Amino acid sequence: MTAELLSVGTELLLGEIVDTNTAWLAQDLAQRGVDIYWSQRVGDNLLRLTAAIRQALARSDLLVMCGGLGPTDDDLSREALAAVCGETPQIDEGLALNLRTRFVATNRPMPQRNLKQAWLIPSAEALPNPIGTAPGWLVRRPDGKRIVALPGPPRELQRMWLSEVVPRLSLPPAALFRQTFKTQGIGESAVAELLGELTLSANPSVATYAKRDGVHVRVAAKAASEAEARALAEPALEQVQQRLSEYLWGSDSDELPMLLQQRLRVRGETVASMESLTGGLIAQLLTSAAGASAVYRGGVVAYGAQAKAAFGVPRDLLERYGSVSEEVVQAMANAARRLFASDYGLAATGVAGPDASEGKAVGEVYVAFSGPGGVTVKQLRLPPLEREWIQERTAYTLLALLWSQLRA
Amino acid sequence: MTAELLSVGTELLLGEIVDTNTAWLAQDLAQRGVDIYWSQRVGDNLLRLTAAIRQALARSDLLVMCGGLGPTDDDLSREALAAVCGETPQIDEGLALNLRTRFVATNRPMPQRNLKQAWLIPSAEALPNPIGTAPGWLVRRPDGKRIVALPGPPRELQRMWLSEVVPRLSLPPAALFRQTFKTQGIGESAVAELLGELTLSANPSVATYAKRDGVHVRVAAKAASEAEARALAEPALEQVQQRLSEYLWGSDSDELPMLLQQRLRVRGETVASMESLTGGLIAQLLTSAAGASAVYRGGVVAYGAQAKAAFGVPRDLLERYGSVSEEVVQAMANAARRLFASDYGLAATGVAGPDASEGKAVGEVYVAFSGPGGVTVKQLRLPPLEREWIQERTAYTLLALLWSQLRA
Repeated sequence: MTAELLSVGTELLLGEIVDTNTAWLAQDLAQRGVDIYWSQRVGDNLLRLTAAIRQALARSDLLVMCGGLGPTDDDLSREALAAVCGETPQIDEGLALNLRTRFVATNRPMPQRNLKQAWLIPSAEALPNPIGTAPGWLVRRPDGKRIVALPGPPRELQRMWLSEVVPRLSLPPAALFRQTFKTQGIGESAVAELLGELTLSANPSVATYAKRDGVHVRVAAKAASEAEARALAEPALEQVQQRLSEYLWGSDSDELPMLLQQRLRVRGETVASMESLTGGLIAQLLTSAAGASAVYRGGVVAYGAQAKAAFGVPRDLLERYGSVSEEVVQAMANAARRLFASDYGLAATGVAGPDASEGKAVGEVYVAFSGPGGVTVKQLRLPPLEREWIQERTAYTLLALLWSQLRA
Repeated sequence: MTAELLSVGTELLLGEIVDTNTAWLAQDLAQRGVDIYWSQRVGDNLLRLTAAIRQALARSDLLVMCGGLGPTDDDLSREALAAVCGETPQIDEGLALNLRTRFVATNRPMPQRNLKQAWLIPSAEALPNPIGTAPGWLVRRPDGKRIVALPGPPRELQRMWLSEVVPRLSLPPAALFRQTFKTQGIGESAVAELLGELTLSANPSVATYAKRDGVHVRVAAKAASEAEARALAEPALEQVQQRLSEYLWGSDSDELPMLLQQRLRVRGETVASMESLTGGLIAQLLTSAAGASAVYRGGVVAYGAQAKAAFGVPRDLLERYGSVSEEVVQAMANAARRLFASDYGLAATGVAGPDASEGKAVGEVYVAFSGPGGVTVKQLRLPPLEREWIQERTAYTLLALLWSQLRA
């Protein structure tokens, strides 16, 4: 089976919105082994829209349309489908009732033009949309070809595709297996070097991605079924794990702040922070997941030397070694732990740039955590890239450091 | 003139990357008054690619192709154009020399296959690409139609379009005027209500956008020249400013943290923060712009009542009114100012969710700033949406509050 995608809307042709729906659908179809050779975008124009539909039906088995199902005169997907099928839309009483009920429930009067969303043609089946006003259409053509019209809002489109279209078209389940490994403390080219020949294979494929929270490695395999795909990926999975073991902190949907929170909860322990160059990012990551208050005691953003001293970093250390030093980051971690009476104290100091500071170069960073077992310090020499990048790299390195300690 | 866009690459059809190039080109063309009626995506397949080019030439005056100019066997844009024109590609010695020089400069050997990027056909002119290895092609057809082939990397594509294609095709300059106003302290539907009939006009158009830092209002106008477009927009600009004056904090590229930093510098004043539900976001925003250390003294993330008390919020206030109260946020702002010896103290407390806390509902928030003129407190009742949304809304409301004080 071959499928073709057609996104509808002048706003797409004007570049006012980026078309993410077709990328999503394309990925889903690819995973099910359905080939897509064509993808078109058309504006809100009846002539061009019908021409595009006719062309798609001439060369593809399945046409998936995105958008153009709204209530306004600009929304022409229904009109175009009716024209191509040579049928006349009628108001479907069931759909009209749904629509009216929806408006009553939200205490709004229903504009007359919305009735258009209750239209149906004889060869189309309505696809329910419990989270929006526009039902979809599934058109069955006499020659066995199928047309699906989906609403434009991504949430509605995705739900309708997975829950309404996939079962009705008996599309095969995804026969793709994917696993993502997440690393810290190593750059992308070093990861690639460790992976070596693995990255040359096409199926399973092994690819690296530089992300906010470290370098990710994705292993993917395609086969006739998900189980076969998994089996095909197995040797690569093992190799990746083995070669990167000392840098791995999680996989797939794992997020460092959530992993830390869960582990700290289990251990009945708490954490606090004192940060300088990261300006609150460490605190923010630690509080990003709901439930953080059970394990996060609080933090200090000690941006200058004065603030560091005020919160318990000995003045003589600041004077002797400077704010950006191993000695000071260690004192900061201890001070955070003491101030908030927490089990662990996290600290970071360094130069985020764009200018050097106290004779230290942009990218010179120290992170530390203090805990029942003493203090661990790590020096980072980050490339002098953007300020935000240095801050993120610093914060995630520190969280990964604590994680490697806690999970041990 | 009508233009058509054609993006090339199997990775687009697989949904592995989202096509942002065509949105960028579409916006640029729209601003120059060039209509786009069609936009296609095709994979790395010579037959389908040539079919798509032929179809585009049959219905559009200008075809802009994105991608497919790399050095590998998968990159077929040159082959397809040569096939459509019925010409044979030859190695252009000038292009080949450029390519070799580029590789020498970066100390890498040039793979033989890269020579493909020096191909040219008689009806094509090479478009220089000083920031990448793939030159573009500008093909002039006997019937006056034009084909432009651009490299896929967005930076290269954009530079080549603006510096090489626009002058060669004598495309008109952008005759679009745009101005964006930024507001705080008012929701999108309330903004729309104040704007009233202004939003119904097509040219100039007035549109609202809900953003991280508040509701933005964009006024846009098209005309034969930018000056005429500006004149056309003038009445709408005045009306928007007048109707929203009490909520406006900036326009176009203005960012609240940067505005605050600049103003504080001029006044020679400093700021500090104590925050709870925002978990470090206020500190992070205040330190997001380079140069923050001159005005930002530091902050405390006092996540629990204990931490608030430890940093100077009187225990009796916490017990009598609870952590989420006008009295406590006021004490937090004062404590921040005192702790860091700053001119202003910013504070926020509230419930970010997902669960209610201390009998207060999700979205109940208090923000305050303390300064030489006393303390200002504001209560927010935010809808119980996502945690991150509540945190962002809180932080930006507070920054806007300080901004309205400082600019006065």
